[in-house]
Amino acid sequence: MSNKTNNLRSVEIRNIMSLAMKPDIISFAGGMPDNNLLPVQDIDRIYHSLTLREKQTAMQYSPTSGLPSLLQSLHNYLKEKGFPLKENKLLITTGSTQAINILTKYFVNPNDPILVENPCFIGALSAFDSYQANIISIPLNEDGIDIEYLNNQLKKQKPKFIYLTPNFHNPAGILYSYKTKEKLIEKLQGLDIPIIEDDVYNELFFFEEDKKHLKSIKEINPEGIDVCYTGSFSKLLGPGLRLGWLLVPNHIYEECEIIKQSFDACSPSFTQVIADKFLRSGYVYNYIDKVKKEYRKRAKAMEKALKKHFPDYAKWVTPRGGFYFWIELPKNIDVTEVLKKSIEKGAVFVTGKTFDPEGKINNAFRISYSNSSIEKINEGIPIIAEAIKEVCEDISCT
Amino acid sequence: MSNKTNNLRSVEIRNIMSLAMKPDIISFAGGMPDNNLLPVQDIDRIYHSLTLREKQTAMQYSPTSGLPSLLQSLHNYLKEKGFPLKENKLLITTGSTQAINILTKYFVNPNDPILVENPCFIGALSAFDSYQANIISIPLNEDGIDIEYLNNQLKKQKPKFIYLTPNFHNPAGILYSYKTKEKLIEKLQGLDIPIIEDDVYNELFFFEEDKKHLKSIKEINPEGIDVCYTGSFSKLLGPGLRLGWLLVPNHIYEECEIIKQSFDACSPSFTQVIADKFLRSGYVYNYIDKVKKEYRKRAKAMEKALKKHFPDYAKWVTPRGGFYFWIELPKNIDVTEVLKKSIEKGAVFVTGKTFDPEGKINNAFRISYSNSSIEKINEGIPIIAEAIKEVCEDISCT
Repeated sequence: MSNKTNNLRSVEIRNIMSLAMKPDIISFAGGMPDNNLLPVQDIDRIYHSLTLREKQTAMQYSPTSGLPSLLQSLHNYLKEKGFPLKENKLLITTGSTQAINILTKYFVNPNDPILVENPCFIGALSAFDSYQANIISIPLNEDGIDIEYLNNQLKKQKPKFIYLTPNFHNPAGILYSYKTKEKLIEKLQGLDIPIIEDDVYNELFFFEEDKKHLKSIKEINPEGIDVCYTGSFSKLLGPGLRLGWLLVPNHIYEECEIIKQSFDACSPSFTQVIADKFLRSGYVYNYIDKVKKEYRKRAKAMEKALKKHFPDYAKWVTPRGGFYFWIELPKNIDVTEVLKKSIEKGAVFVTGKTFDPEGKINNAFRISYSNSSIEKINEGIPIIAEAIKEVCEDISCT
Repeated sequence: MSNKTNNLRSVEIRNIMSLAMKPDIISFAGGMPDNNLLPVQDIDRIYHSLTLREKQTAMQYSPTSGLPSLLQSLHNYLKEKGFPLKENKLLITTGSTQAINILTKYFVNPNDPILVENPCFIGALSAFDSYQANIISIPLNEDGIDIEYLNNQLKKQKPKFIYLTPNFHNPAGILYSYKTKEKLIEKLQGLDIPIIEDDVYNELFFFEEDKKHLKSIKEINPEGIDVCYTGSFSKLLGPGLRLGWLLVPNHIYEECEIIKQSFDACSPSFTQVIADKFLRSGYVYNYIDKVKKEYRKRAKAMEKALKKHFPDYAKWVTPRGGFYFWIELPKNIDVTEVLKKSIEKGAVFVTGKTFDPEGKINNAFRISYSNSSIEKINEGIPIIAEAIKEVCEDISCT
């Protein structure tokens, strides 16, 4: 039974979703791929290639751990990327949201402290709330979590885990530097604090030269730290398939599978059959290549528009992958006011306090370029710019 | 974090699934539809009829409550059957297992008492365990729950809910009489104890004359009792779609949606699009008609084989729908021994203690006819009969 914070957070998510889906408004609110970029033709080809037996498999129960052929193809896919598959086990989940929920149920009893970034992915916060975790947040810098702040917090309590999104953070848009990842690992050595590493955007990098920084903590494979890694097909293939995965140390795996079993018995076989073929056929590589080029173009167009229309006091870190710009305004601005005016004018985004575990900090907001054409970006950014300026007219905004 | 009972129960489920899927053994273990009966051609027709926009919808997020068009078609489907839709709200879930889990999270805190039937669906027991419910079980008679026993239990404590499967019980195979349903409703009047009514087999009735008894408690719509109804597409269309639903009173709905959101954000849009078309096209009616005739034939064949091969001391209630025979043997027989011998000889089923909330009673077992041809039934039943007789050779079994 959830508490009030959780209710508010959930109502917020619902509001975002419904605003993001309104047809008569330009929406930078949703963290989803553009409908026009979804690999519909690949899926058609895959469906047509299915044998009768594969279609039957698609309509039948699968093992709780996942469809064996998908587990195999995903294993190969991750192995090729350099993930340590020997000392870890894969569990197919119903989206990465379920993966995070499973881990929270595994680790957290009511009032247990956990550490998260600030800002933080709202879907994860919602899961943490639902188990009555005591959420403690650590600020993010441009190159990752604030190590000093983390250090101070670790002196105060031992958290059940630390939840991180090091690559193309939602909503902050940043990429942790490799150095920050190293420092973090060093800091956690010997402390017996597991990491939940949420890494659903890692394929969507814009620059080859970032590959070193992109190496996930799971891939770095630090000895003595339990890294519970969550991945997703939502950004790789389509959220409507509702498929993600957990890659966790062997000693954590079994209990996770048991929790998953009581949640929904198994993930949809229908979409598991499709995801398996998507990996095996190699369609996945062309598709990622295509979409990340497109997202890069959009990010570039959005930054150009931001530079042209936004006032100088609006600050951001240029995203190097993923879906988001995170815009920071002077501390005395209430972004909720900006949003109100912006909606009146026809553009919508998500306010910063949505992603603040304490629900307070509200001089920032998230705008997503993943779901809007360049045309819509050029139309929508000036609207938000105007809204910001109007709110700032009466107060000192420098 | 689950307790030991839950671990054992989950290992049991996994064992059943893996035995049920072994190719070299005749399996009466799985509670799943036969692969050969799945509506593959209907799904082909549906997939080919999808527009580009529908395919995009299939691959995108849907609202947490469910895809609007599926909510509408399911609403109409249930309304036509006579369900009270006005004072209740529908939530699409990732299988009915998720529906049960959501309700358990909603109602139960650790050590809260709940009432269930004995025997009881193991998937539900697994969810109840995972929230550390204090599970109290009430025996089943041929025509439903033992009202006298229930009455005594209600004097001892007020449970958070009572979980029931009145129509074609899994595993007991029985159908509650209308009279038992009436008595139950009368008993619960004014007690403020909600019912979770698990009704996934109700379409699979063999005899038109049973329709009166089949009326669900939700349809009866007793005033003053919160009935939380769970349904499923698993038996209607295919378990691999992972779709079920909750129909709950308005005042319970919102919190359930919030819990669902933190579980997996939304159910698979891909299969929701298909299920929607399956209802709208009317394929569902022909399909149910076809499979229930087939299941009836198999049940008949199985009973014939049971009468021919099983010893007189084996007792059962002839199923009038659903998937299962529940066989009771004399109290001094340990069915685990029968299962061991039966597996050696090449046939598998599920032991009774799996479905006993206390994990003790083990002179009964479940055999499913849903997943085996008549040929396999005629081959497998004599094997189990032989195993029973061998175990009984050394002990007095009358």
